[in-house]
Amino acid sequence: MRADRSEAARPAASSVKQLFSRNDMAKKPKAVILGVGAERGIGGAASRRFAREGHHVLVAGRTTAKIDKVVETIRREGGSATAVTVDGTREDEIIKLFDRAMADDADGSPADLFVFNMGNNAAVDIREMTAQHFEDSWRVGCFAGFLFGREAVRRLAPLGRGTVIFTGASGSLRGRPRFAAFNATKGGLRLFVQSLAREFGPQGLHIAHVIIDGGIEGDRLLSRMPDRAEKAGPDGLLNVEAIVDNYWHLHRQHRSAWSHEIDLRPYKEPF
Amino acid sequence: MRADRSEAARPAASSVKQLFSRNDMAKKPKAVILGVGAERGIGGAASRRFAREGHHVLVAGRTTAKIDKVVETIRREGGSATAVTVDGTREDEIIKLFDRAMADDADGSPADLFVFNMGNNAAVDIREMTAQHFEDSWRVGCFAGFLFGREAVRRLAPLGRGTVIFTGASGSLRGRPRFAAFNATKGGLRLFVQSLAREFGPQGLHIAHVIIDGGIEGDRLLSRMPDRAEKAGPDGLLNVEAIVDNYWHLHRQHRSAWSHEIDLRPYKEPF
Amino acid sequence: MRADRSEAARPAASSVKQLFSRNDMAKKPKAVILGVGAERGIGGAASRRFAREGHHVLVAGRTTAKIDKVVETIRREGGSATAVTVDGTREDEIIKLFDRAMADDADGSPADLFVFNMGNNAAVDIREMTAQHFEDSWRVGCFAGFLFGREAVRRLAPLGRGTVIFTGASGSLRGRPRFAAFNATKGGLRLFVQSLAREFGPQGLHIAHVIIDGGIEGDRLLSRMPDRAEKAGPDGLLNVEAIVDNYWHLHRQHRSAWSHEIDLRPYKEPF
Amino acid sequence: MRADRSEAARPAASSVKQLFSRNDMAKKPKAVILGVGAERGIGGAASRRFAREGHHVLVAGRTTAKIDKVVETIRREGGSATAVTVDGTREDEIIKLFDRAMADDADGSPADLFVFNMGNNAAVDIREMTAQHFEDSWRVGCFAGFLFGREAVRRLAPLGRGTVIFTGASGSLRGRPRFAAFNATKGGLRLFVQSLAREFGPQGLHIAHVIIDGGIEGDRLLSRMPDRAEKAGPDGLLNVEAIVDNYWHLHRQHRSAWSHEIDLRPYKEPF
Repeated sequence: MRADRSEAARPAASSVKQLFSRNDMAKKPKAVILGVGAERGIGGAASRRFAREGHHVLVAGRTTAKIDKVVETIRREGGSATAVTVDGTREDEIIKLFDRAMADDADGSPADLFVFNMGNNAAVDIREMTAQHFEDSWRVGCFAGFLFGREAVRRLAPLGRGTVIFTGASGSLRGRPRFAAFNATKGGLRLFVQSLAREFGPQGLHIAHVIIDGGIEGDRLLSRMPDRAEKAGPDGLLNVEAIVDNYWHLHRQHRSAWSHEIDLRPYKEPF
Repeated sequence: MRADRSEAARPAASSVKQLFSRNDMAKKPKAVILGVGAERGIGGAASRRFAREGHHVLVAGRTTAKIDKVVETIRREGGSATAVTVDGTREDEIIKLFDRAMADDADGSPADLFVFNMGNNAAVDIREMTAQHFEDSWRVGCFAGFLFGREAVRRLAPLGRGTVIFTGASGSLRGRPRFAAFNATKGGLRLFVQSLAREFGPQGLHIAHVIIDGGIEGDRLLSRMPDRAEKAGPDGLLNVEAIVDNYWHLHRQHRSAWSHEIDLRPYKEPF
Repeated sequence: MRADRSEAARPAASSVKQLFSRNDMAKKPKAVILGVGAERGIGGAASRRFAREGHHVLVAGRTTAKIDKVVETIRREGGSATAVTVDGTREDEIIKLFDRAMADDADGSPADLFVFNMGNNAAVDIREMTAQHFEDSWRVGCFAGFLFGREAVRRLAPLGRGTVIFTGASGSLRGRPRFAAFNATKGGLRLFVQSLAREFGPQGLHIAHVIIDGGIEGDRLLSRMPDRAEKAGPDGLLNVEAIVDNYWHLHRQHRSAWSHEIDLRPYKEPF
Repeated sequence: MRADRSEAARPAASSVKQLFSRNDMAKKPKAVILGVGAERGIGGAASRRFAREGHHVLVAGRTTAKIDKVVETIRREGGSATAVTVDGTREDEIIKLFDRAMADDADGSPADLFVFNMGNNAAVDIREMTAQHFEDSWRVGCFAGFLFGREAVRRLAPLGRGTVIFTGASGSLRGRPRFAAFNATKGGLRLFVQSLAREFGPQGLHIAHVIIDGGIEGDRLLSRMPDRAEKAGPDGLLNVEAIVDNYWHLHRQHRSAWSHEIDLRPYKEPF
């Protein structure tokens, strides 16, 4: 049996993408996670994982205190990261984030891995929903995704490489009572991502959408709905490290066998 | 064989909805079509058809000259209609439109049939797409749909009846290169509609989404892309009267057998 | 307003199909319904409806007593029909059925409307399911559909016209615990039909799939599960005449705006 | 940074499944691949990969010479495997295969990983397709999948663990002209698998379906359609090792975040 099993299974490095995810390069490639909040959440877990895999991570989110904490943890674990406070709904701020991500500077080489993780999710009676609520939902979950996705393909298309992952939900696929705003936002984001994937896949960009179907075992749910975690039982909520293991897997996929949409749900979750 | 064939096939009138679509009532029920432009278009054809079926039609659109023309034609054909100039992206104007639609006044009894037909469709390179373009697309095709849908369920839920139809497209189901804005808009609208259908169907509201898959033989396409009409050959573009025949059919469906999403495409159209 | 409203909305007769559904022809066109059982069922209702619309109906099913009863009713109503006892899983019998259907004989002119309505549906624990059960389910619901569909396109493709409708179910779209055999059968039939639709649509054949999502208010359910009918409440089960109104509507669609798949469910049905 | 990165990202071992995939156990767990043909094919590559990951592999297929060759290669690479000649369409042979797989014997401990990889794919004009062809396609690609899946859940449900992966295709999702038999087979298999996944997921069995969308860079395609490989260009066909890397990833997924269906396609493939 070969000494290094994980290498053994890897196809010959005809995929440019994979060359950039090795740790033995002089400089680390950067990764960008937009929508990092609580440390125990998808954004926080992705940041830590990508750092462990050898990326310099731009930990981007709205609340400085939260992203600072994620960066501290990464550094304590021996990784390298920078906190970038950013309002993802503002075009100028997204452009600046990408300027930084694509720079070949002291932090690392240009980014090859991008995650869009913004979005809210609240049950609201449509009859009482304000136009402002509907618009805010879209602005955070879909318009920001447009800014992020557009900037990503602008920068990556000339290079012909890069992975861009968008976090979706079961609400991206099916409408549900009381989730009209969330559904409109997520349904829009999903088809936006598909348009990008179909256009830029053949140009070498791996653009993928991940359907998270179930409750996430993160700080948000655990603090707001402790009962639900209780009821879910062991592994009844999605473990954030388990989730981001799939993000990393997507980034590592050989370009002859890319996934463009995958679902993730707890084993107990009805679907 | 029975004298009146179309009656013979109709289920007993346990469906409240159907009681309202008879012509023999003292007053005509109203119908509302939002997004009427050229006379030869889905909005214009729906307006004329519903008038022929015995509704008083509120022909609503942005360009007064265009909707006036549709109303004139309806009157010339012996029907009854009113032009309502309205910017569908403005909450106050949508509310006024519904106030008018639901009034029991000289024009007719409260509306039981609503069509949302707004939306733009333009191929744009995502790398050159402005944030304004993306937002405008959403505002016209999705946000306006939210205003329309919310107002409809607010008014109809207490009555437990009514048909609300939204015009979709193949772009509502699949992303396509160069149509990122359109896909985001239509994908969002579709799941918004599904959320409403799932919540208010059991309350008696028939909320349906129609996937138009192909070029429409209307003034827009014929004037902008005469070549495409030529190439499509006989019946290669969707006849607008054929389209709205299906809208009417949806309105007439017995509530024990409702369609929530149907596709319509020319027989030649690949899918 | 025009005297004959239903005519007013009809597109000019560029669709060959529609020419064949008029009643004023010297001879009635034939229609074939395979899978007729109880009179109050989809097959029985379709037979009666098409007869009322002016077709000579070949009422085809396995149990002579049942189809005879449907034919009697049709005749009593003034229509014209023939009972054809047939095992739909036998190639030679299907071929004979189509020989008869396509003949221009005393019964009528060649058939232009075909419905495949066979299929069983039983909840079975997969761990206790015999191979025979799985195969029988497929043979009745999918293999018979192949024989029917193949024969239809063989006969209709040279004519460039004809409507072929297959009855599907929510189980055609989604797998469900305890319905592994039904799901395998219906999922297979659906994609078979789609293959035919995509190939023969452009040749003028309207091949459509109808997703019946809910309990059917027919003899089968009413006799086996009277409780369920009770619980469903008014219009909580699909009225068979309401269902077949949609089959007829599909047949009448203008070829510039065909539906290839529609869903039908009671207004209360969750989906 | 932690010494063992792949460990660092793994959730705590609450998932029983993962305990069985470690190499440090006294005995190797078995894996079963049914549908192994040419060495360079999905079956062959999966067999070799799982062997490298520490499984004893039952390499099952119809042609003894072919599976023997795969076993030889595995042994040469230091792995452990047994060739099992089996006709997957025969119930008794499938039962024997599972008896062997679930035995705790000299070969290894009971299997925890199963792949169903049978199926043919041939373009045939439906009008010339024999009933035998349609049935054979189903028997090999769907009925055999039923035998395999039923046997798997029978054996695994009492244990509450195990991964069962079925190879699908784009034809599992969409019908296509000339592929009516393939579509019927694959569409049926997909919903069968979904039924199992929905029933046995909550019991701890990970049942997944992989949509292979594109040409496979294996012996079959390369020998039959060398032109196609040429035209596809670098990484334009799915690399078999890249494919099975995803099968292995599915097996390694934490049970709080399982995928039930993933797509895999070359970066250039339109979809």
